[in-house]
Amino acid sequence: MLRSLEDYVEFVGDKAVSSIYKKASNLYSKHICHVNSTFLGGGVAELLSRIVPLTNEIGLDTGWRVVHGTPAFFNVTKKFHNALQGKAINLSPMEKKLYLSVNERFSTYTHIEDSDCVVIHDPQPLPLVKFYKKRQPWIWRCHIDLSNPNKELWDFLKTFMIRYDMVIFSNEKFKKSNLPVQQRIIYPAIDPLSLKNVELQDKDIARYIKLAQIPTDKPLITQVSRMDPWKDPEGVLEVYRLVKKKVDCRLLYCYNLAADDPEGMEVYSRVQRKAKDLIESKDLLFVVGNDDLLVNAIQRFSSVILQKSIKEGFGLTVCEALWKGKPVVASNVGGISTQIKDGENGFLVESHDYKGCADRVIEILKNPNLVQKISKKAKERVRRHFLLPRLLSDYLDLFIELIK
Amino acid sequence: MLRSLEDYVEFVGDKAVSSIYKKASNLYSKHICHVNSTFLGGGVAELLSRIVPLTNEIGLDTGWRVVHGTPAFFNVTKKFHNALQGKAINLSPMEKKLYLSVNERFSTYTHIEDSDCVVIHDPQPLPLVKFYKKRQPWIWRCHIDLSNPNKELWDFLKTFMIRYDMVIFSNEKFKKSNLPVQQRIIYPAIDPLSLKNVELQDKDIARYIKLAQIPTDKPLITQVSRMDPWKDPEGVLEVYRLVKKKVDCRLLYCYNLAADDPEGMEVYSRVQRKAKDLIESKDLLFVVGNDDLLVNAIQRFSSVILQKSIKEGFGLTVCEALWKGKPVVASNVGGISTQIKDGENGFLVESHDYKGCADRVIEILKNPNLVQKISKKAKERVRRHFLLPRLLSDYLDLFIELIK
Repeated sequence: MLRSLEDYVEFVGDKAVSSIYKKASNLYSKHICHVNSTFLGGGVAELLSRIVPLTNEIGLDTGWRVVHGTPAFFNVTKKFHNALQGKAINLSPMEKKLYLSVNERFSTYTHIEDSDCVVIHDPQPLPLVKFYKKRQPWIWRCHIDLSNPNKELWDFLKTFMIRYDMVIFSNEKFKKSNLPVQQRIIYPAIDPLSLKNVELQDKDIARYIKLAQIPTDKPLITQVSRMDPWKDPEGVLEVYRLVKKKVDCRLLYCYNLAADDPEGMEVYSRVQRKAKDLIESKDLLFVVGNDDLLVNAIQRFSSVILQKSIKEGFGLTVCEALWKGKPVVASNVGGISTQIKDGENGFLVESHDYKGCADRVIEILKNPNLVQKISKKAKERVRRHFLLPRLLSDYLDLFIELIK
Repeated sequence: MLRSLEDYVEFVGDKAVSSIYKKASNLYSKHICHVNSTFLGGGVAELLSRIVPLTNEIGLDTGWRVVHGTPAFFNVTKKFHNALQGKAINLSPMEKKLYLSVNERFSTYTHIEDSDCVVIHDPQPLPLVKFYKKRQPWIWRCHIDLSNPNKELWDFLKTFMIRYDMVIFSNEKFKKSNLPVQQRIIYPAIDPLSLKNVELQDKDIARYIKLAQIPTDKPLITQVSRMDPWKDPEGVLEVYRLVKKKVDCRLLYCYNLAADDPEGMEVYSRVQRKAKDLIESKDLLFVVGNDDLLVNAIQRFSSVILQKSIKEGFGLTVCEALWKGKPVVASNVGGISTQIKDGENGFLVESHDYKGCADRVIEILKNPNLVQKISKKAKERVRRHFLLPRLLSDYLDLFIELIK
């Protein structure tokens, strides 16, 4: 279903929508091109799948290209991802060469000469800029938690970043004083009209839950995320085991495997081994999150949403849950604390404090009044700050500023 | 490594290369755009990854876009693939709608207005043409074995085909008298300079085989293909069991999982169950074919190459093996009989004749002279007809004819 900008009036009001149309009129006949590394799985693909059609819809020709990687390339770039979030890395000259050569090859058949601005997402296509005659502003939009990047890798990637006109991070904390490029913060956003977030009737929720064979006899604690060590799926198990001692409930891990993430299957197997008893007792359910309506229903049906991330660029899944008025217990890392004010519209815990996390979950499960108190505030915070039209507006400001 | 057209002089001579440059000069400043549905796995992605950079290299701006499908979309299009090769299909209105809506959404952010010719590969992006103001010739390039397509689906897909200016098949047999669109045959081709096909020294072959932990104490029979019922992996097992009774040897199945093929994992599990004894005795090896140099080494190291397909649009893997001078035993289906003249440069068997196939393999294993006899002819046939410059030349002829 293709959406129009005016469909968002009901969420953000007609003043906000009208201001976007006015901004767009400064950009008539301009072309924008986004490049990332997957069209499926993970937050970046999801963001682009919503923002790109909408930008086109308001009259700005906007392309979305996906770098054609190989499995070996994605192994290298996943290492990058991990190292930018703080892990050690041992980068061989061969790996650097592969990283560059995939980008070089992609550049030979990706013609962006006509674009008035190029937006590159995350490290995978970062070196692309090297392989063009630069004729327009280039923006590097980084979605990763950069609070503590590995220095060796940062220095290597910086050699590409300095060719850019602007670098965008998801949080003030990620700005870098040693990067001589203009830096700006833009928060990601969710689409209230996507299948993942659209309002559902109770009977439809029940139908999806039944179709997915999810038992409904106990309260459900849910984490929705890629199978990734940074999402701490093993920590989620620990927390659940603590909760389970006090309140009978079920854990649902709704996971996704992204095409550009080769680690996923490994992590999945490890988690399965560790949780054998819980899987056998049917207290732990794994559900593949590749059906947006099902994920939507699961989030709405859950009693508590967990997001036990160790690092988090922003945390779109937190946003999705808040929008649904759900009580979220999440780690106080990266962009999550931008979304949650502890005790007000959700709950923050330190990422290694399993006990504290479990206590919060137990409190919520035992105290329905608590949920009522925060539910409205959770939704309102998202409505004000983290919906798609605000993101579109931020991008337009950026383009107006950069494109002469 | 980016290749130049002149690198191919050593294979096809300077006359052929010079004629390509002359053709290209008729197309100065023209733009071509290819669209398919995966950049990884399977023959089409491989073909495009070679032909597209080379077309750019000779001066013709040529893009390559990959339709952004969802898992549900690829489930539907895999059904299409199966039905076009003869299986029954029960197409729901929802499935048709999904097929169209993915293409419509993709069209909103895929700007091909500047292209002078659009080449659409296979059924996945076929309806795209509906979602543009058509301003240039569109070509539908079908790589599938169309000898016996399901009528219901054919009629549905024909409603899109008739918007095209030209339809290209891989074989005369696939032409359709009931399709009122210009039809042409273009054979696919392999790239002698790709990592998959480049000449390897014996010591390098040995090194790759060792790295992949492939034992070298017995002759190796190999099939290289996607995990797909049409490649008849279960038939391959049958043939091997028959061969094994007469000659001690090993079977290697070098498989690939394509991003747009959801059936792969299922088929893989079924084959593994059926071959449990062979896997345990280490007589059957499965190797993931995602490293081109390894596949190259495996093909060169094997004593016999099988291609037991039930349907085959062309069969690039047959071509690869012939180019390496290997004795190939392949089914007499689709495009394979265009490549192999039985007994001359390889061997054809009926696709359900397991005994006949096994007998051929046994004959080859027992008779090294036979191999010598056909090896040179196998390579020469590919050199003359199925190398990349010939394919490029055919495309240029087509563009010159279609673009005014």
